[in-house]
Amino acid sequence: MILIGERINAGFKDIARAIQEKDPELVKNWAVKQAEQGADYLDVNIGAASKKPEDMAWLVQTVQEAVPTKISVDSTNVEIMEAGLEALDGRGALINSTTADPGKLERLIPLAAKYNTSLLGVAMDERGSPPDADRRVENGAMIFAMATDGGLEPERIILDPILMPLKFMQEQVSHVLEAISQYILLSDPPPHISVGLSNIASKVTERRLIVRTFLVMAMGRGLDAAICNVMDNEMIAAVATAELILNKEIYSDSYVRAFTARRGP
Amino acid sequence: MILIGERINAGFKDIARAIQEKDPELVKNWAVKQAEQGADYLDVNIGAASKKPEDMAWLVQTVQEAVPTKISVDSTNVEIMEAGLEALDGRGALINSTTADPGKLERLIPLAAKYNTSLLGVAMDERGSPPDADRRVENGAMIFAMATDGGLEPERIILDPILMPLKFMQEQVSHVLEAISQYILLSDPPPHISVGLSNIASKVTERRLIVRTFLVMAMGRGLDAAICNVMDNEMIAAVATAELILNKEIYSDSYVRAFTARRGP
Repeated sequence: MILIGERINAGFKDIARAIQEKDPELVKNWAVKQAEQGADYLDVNIGAASKKPEDMAWLVQTVQEAVPTKISVDSTNVEIMEAGLEALDGRGALINSTTADPGKLERLIPLAAKYNTSLLGVAMDERGSPPDADRRVENGAMIFAMATDGGLEPERIILDPILMPLKFMQEQVSHVLEAISQYILLSDPPPHISVGLSNIASKVTERRLIVRTFLVMAMGRGLDAAICNVMDNEMIAAVATAELILNKEIYSDSYVRAFTARRGP
Repeated sequence: MILIGERINAGFKDIARAIQEKDPELVKNWAVKQAEQGADYLDVNIGAASKKPEDMAWLVQTVQEAVPTKISVDSTNVEIMEAGLEALDGRGALINSTTADPGKLERLIPLAAKYNTSLLGVAMDERGSPPDADRRVENGAMIFAMATDGGLEPERIILDPILMPLKFMQEQVSHVLEAISQYILLSDPPPHISVGLSNIASKVTERRLIVRTFLVMAMGRGLDAAICNVMDNEMIAAVATAELILNKEIYSDSYVRAFTARRGP
């Protein structure tokens, strides 16, 4: 399972303030905490806190000083994305994200090739969020085809079928599961498949229960990545257990602790 | 989801003693507690505590006096099974269980027809437990074919792919998931699919975590029944959440409480 820690994102007020005040300690603290929980990537997103590419570069450098974890450079703006990629110290990274927009793909696929990163493609197109499983599959397949044509191997491509809030778009959640079952048929080995996990739990009372239950169920269909709150210990324990059930890790009585220890910084 | 409460089984010492001493109160207490947790069926099994068919009849009658819940008459012995069926007061019931043994099926299918019950078939044959997914599918398909030939509709047939202990036969657990994916293709509507859930957690440290994680993942593949410890509130909450994700129940903020309330006695 590829766990992408969501916390270094200016959508969180403390991170927005840290970017504006150039406070490295707060950022490094979140980097270390998420890495210790077993994050494979740390998402880095300056969001609405800044429009300056140099702020993304600063944020990437700050995280890199704290931990050896791979970086998920997260922006919808290609200039900001490129500044983040340029700041990488040679470690593994992920472009987060493109949509199924040919113009965007034509700019981001060469960046993934140049910086030797993976590429995350969300199954959204110019018509907006996909209404059903079919549109998710269409858009994902289009991203996959353009990325492989552009020289990326399937293991460097991560498709995101776009998880919607359970409370407001309940039927969309089962469409996401259906899309996952289709994505794993795209190639052998299949591309990776990720969701922005926290989105399912918008405005619900049983936030963490819904998050981990969906995650386990989606892993059973083929999901193998998630942008998520890695500080949620019960979710981490559920992921460790799901990996055993899928026979991807070997059982030991201390498997939950072993899962985090094996993956930490 | 069809929840079959496992607790009225002479494998538990208090139930064995209650059968030997003909103590109805202890049995009724477990019947009420499991029904209040939302059990759809109560499993009733005299196990090794007695070889007398009249003890099964007593146990079924005692449960029926306590709650209106359906009964899962559980025995490997056909005479004891028939005594349990004969004691039914007309409520819904389940024959638990047959194996993929033609001789056994030829006796139990007519009983299911006569007493208007469902029939649970475990995918075991004279060679013992199935070593892989294929044998599970073969045996399940054989049970399904004989049962439908014998006049049972798919919705009265419950197939059990035989869940093995994660700690000792880890790869078998993924074979079970694969078999579930095949069983749902047997007919439209498909037969029900159940497991003896507690078996996965034999001798493990994280018993309840493993049970509920497997259950959710298997529900995502098509499992819709389980013989289980319905007293496990975290498992019940996970099942309620899984039903939302699969769009089988409508979201409400109090959905966990609503799940149990809707199903209670």
